[in-house]
Amino acid sequence: MTNPVAGAALGALDETGVTAVGVRPAGEVTAAVGERRYLHAGPPLGGEGMVGPLRGALIGALMLEGEADSPEAAARILDRGDLELASCHDNGGVGAMAGVVTPSIPVVVMETDGGSRAFSPLNEGLGKALRFGSYDPATLDRLRWLGAVAGPTLHAALGAVGGLDMVDLWAEGLRRGDECHNRNVASSAAVLARLAPAIVAAADRQDAVDVLSYIGANPHFFLALSIAGGKAVSDVVHRSGDPGVVTAMSSNGASLGIRVSGAGDRWFLTKSLIGEPKLFEGYTPADASPVLGDSFIAETVGLGAFALSASPAIASFVGGDPLTASERVEELRGICRGTSSRFLIPAEGFRGTPIGIDVHKVVATGVTPLANAGLAHREAGRGQVGACLLRLPPAPFAEAVAFLDA
Amino acid sequence: MTNPVAGAALGALDETGVTAVGVRPAGEVTAAVGERRYLHAGPPLGGEGMVGPLRGALIGALMLEGEADSPEAAARILDRGDLELASCHDNGGVGAMAGVVTPSIPVVVMETDGGSRAFSPLNEGLGKALRFGSYDPATLDRLRWLGAVAGPTLHAALGAVGGLDMVDLWAEGLRRGDECHNRNVASSAAVLARLAPAIVAAADRQDAVDVLSYIGANPHFFLALSIAGGKAVSDVVHRSGDPGVVTAMSSNGASLGIRVSGAGDRWFLTKSLIGEPKLFEGYTPADASPVLGDSFIAETVGLGAFALSASPAIASFVGGDPLTASERVEELRGICRGTSSRFLIPAEGFRGTPIGIDVHKVVATGVTPLANAGLAHREAGRGQVGACLLRLPPAPFAEAVAFLDA
Repeated sequence: MTNPVAGAALGALDETGVTAVGVRPAGEVTAAVGERRYLHAGPPLGGEGMVGPLRGALIGALMLEGEADSPEAAARILDRGDLELASCHDNGGVGAMAGVVTPSIPVVVMETDGGSRAFSPLNEGLGKALRFGSYDPATLDRLRWLGAVAGPTLHAALGAVGGLDMVDLWAEGLRRGDECHNRNVASSAAVLARLAPAIVAAADRQDAVDVLSYIGANPHFFLALSIAGGKAVSDVVHRSGDPGVVTAMSSNGASLGIRVSGAGDRWFLTKSLIGEPKLFEGYTPADASPVLGDSFIAETVGLGAFALSASPAIASFVGGDPLTASERVEELRGICRGTSSRFLIPAEGFRGTPIGIDVHKVVATGVTPLANAGLAHREAGRGQVGACLLRLPPAPFAEAVAFLDA
Repeated sequence: MTNPVAGAALGALDETGVTAVGVRPAGEVTAAVGERRYLHAGPPLGGEGMVGPLRGALIGALMLEGEADSPEAAARILDRGDLELASCHDNGGVGAMAGVVTPSIPVVVMETDGGSRAFSPLNEGLGKALRFGSYDPATLDRLRWLGAVAGPTLHAALGAVGGLDMVDLWAEGLRRGDECHNRNVASSAAVLARLAPAIVAAADRQDAVDVLSYIGANPHFFLALSIAGGKAVSDVVHRSGDPGVVTAMSSNGASLGIRVSGAGDRWFLTKSLIGEPKLFEGYTPADASPVLGDSFIAETVGLGAFALSASPAIASFVGGDPLTASERVEELRGICRGTSSRFLIPAEGFRGTPIGIDVHKVVATGVTPLANAGLAHREAGRGQVGACLLRLPPAPFAEAVAFLDA
């Protein structure tokens, strides 16, 4: 096949600048959400039905937006199909786990140096959360507080500091043991350190205390920034005119799909799966929902499992061995078009992470991407039950090659 | 020789708990400082004269305390010997670089689970600083602000959170790429994340903004905590009754000395040195003062160069190669009595750092400790000119062995 814009995908991955510019209610950021029109993680829903965490999140979403005054009423809306749903990825956004986006949910907004934008909901924090399908009053109260207090405060603080350079944060995150997907604790603290004075200047004292406490107690605060920034970069790659590079890997819990540059809006799909879970104490594999969420966008831009050797602590958490992390990254180099000049792995002598997952190389080598996945309980609202180092199934890559080469 | 308390030194190094409990003016923490009675880093001063950074720091200290209204007047006090000086280490404290402690300088206070205490001055931040021998008005103004605003605010915040567990912070620091001596940036942000809400609750808005800005902009904020905590642990080792373990390595710029358990208050001395400097652009080795300061206490308790492979970013900064950091740590294992069960190196499969530098092993192997040292300009107040991975000279270890075996 001809390559009309040779190198453009790799260039976009290695050179696109991204800045966190604000936090706004999703309804002000994208026309894709509105009254009874919400977004969710993963490919568009097919006929397979919804997994528990997504159904729970949508019940919570309908209550949050005042469409239903009880879980039962919300379930009835869902069951009669009276809610329009679309994929985050198809609309310039990403969401962790269930990834539900409604008009009032505050999203962090990224802007590339080319002016394009992407978004992702603020991370809710630990414990019960909408992203795991919880819809209890505490979950909804926290979402309302995020929208009323944390969102506007963070928006003002980001404005006051002139935005946050995501490439700097990612690069420094790798030096601080984060792979910026499942380990975000050092980067979350780094963002807090950068924003804290502006947060205090922007808010009443109690609100400032609450916002600082929310960020400080949430080791995944940075995840929303990381995946929104990753989406901003990968959408530039997708539009680069250089075909064959993976620009999304994502699951709605039922199907798992990839998007590929040169294939337009097409998703290449397979059934979602659980992988080899490393479960928290007290859980069995039967408790886990198949992988869910858009957060593999981190891997898509050269972070997460593609930076595994920068984050020995997460290498253990997801079920790997820190001593073999470099071997896993080395294997991924074989399916990528190049090496990042920005995301450097200290323990590998500051060698860059592999970037530009090439579907033809995946098919030729038989090596599929790895991703650091969190696992939700299969029942709505039960939360995280573990994590896994997921080897993506080969089918979508083969289909993408067949499509591109047709 | 007999070992009256076998294993006690190693036990103290591996088991002593330490909590950062407050920040107070040094005059309230130790009776060793008072009117024209100050402390300095390193062994007690001998007849060799003072290096530039220490002389500059003492000029600044006399002005800070109102003893002199000009650098010239302060220099006259110094030149006629009208100032009583003692070693921080001999008085339960440590100081970075010049390490000057006066009654009004705010020090962070550590308390061990056995109730003993240690202290170190708050780190002033980047740029001109007393610890490098600066005594210009901006340096003195910042010290006054630290005493009047930052110190009391941090004291209140530490009280509000019930103190900070230093062992947790050190252990997590290694997971975040800090070796907690020359790289402290992730741990500084971690402390900020822990204290930020309490800082806001404790201070007026502008003071809170200023204190958060001071911590957030200072990648070495944690250094003061790290070395004060290290001193608290090593003083327990020193009193353990188990002889032959190094409990201080320190330099006043003229002489470099070590303290050893079982040798009481005796210092084993040699001439200070520069090592193999990695200098910032624009400097030559002739610009560097010989190494100076008490901060090798980090290495003494199993951090710093003894955790080099946990911090690939600093391994480059001090002049090493991240790929050989593990070999350097391995060599240090040969002169230590054991392995930390608390300070785990992620990149080595969570193996502990070497702890308990044994003077007999140093002499038997001919391998002396390494330390990650910052280098000051030899002229007062010019600041940092570089860093080095310092191989300590063998003489003090041989003298300690001779003394203990006599």
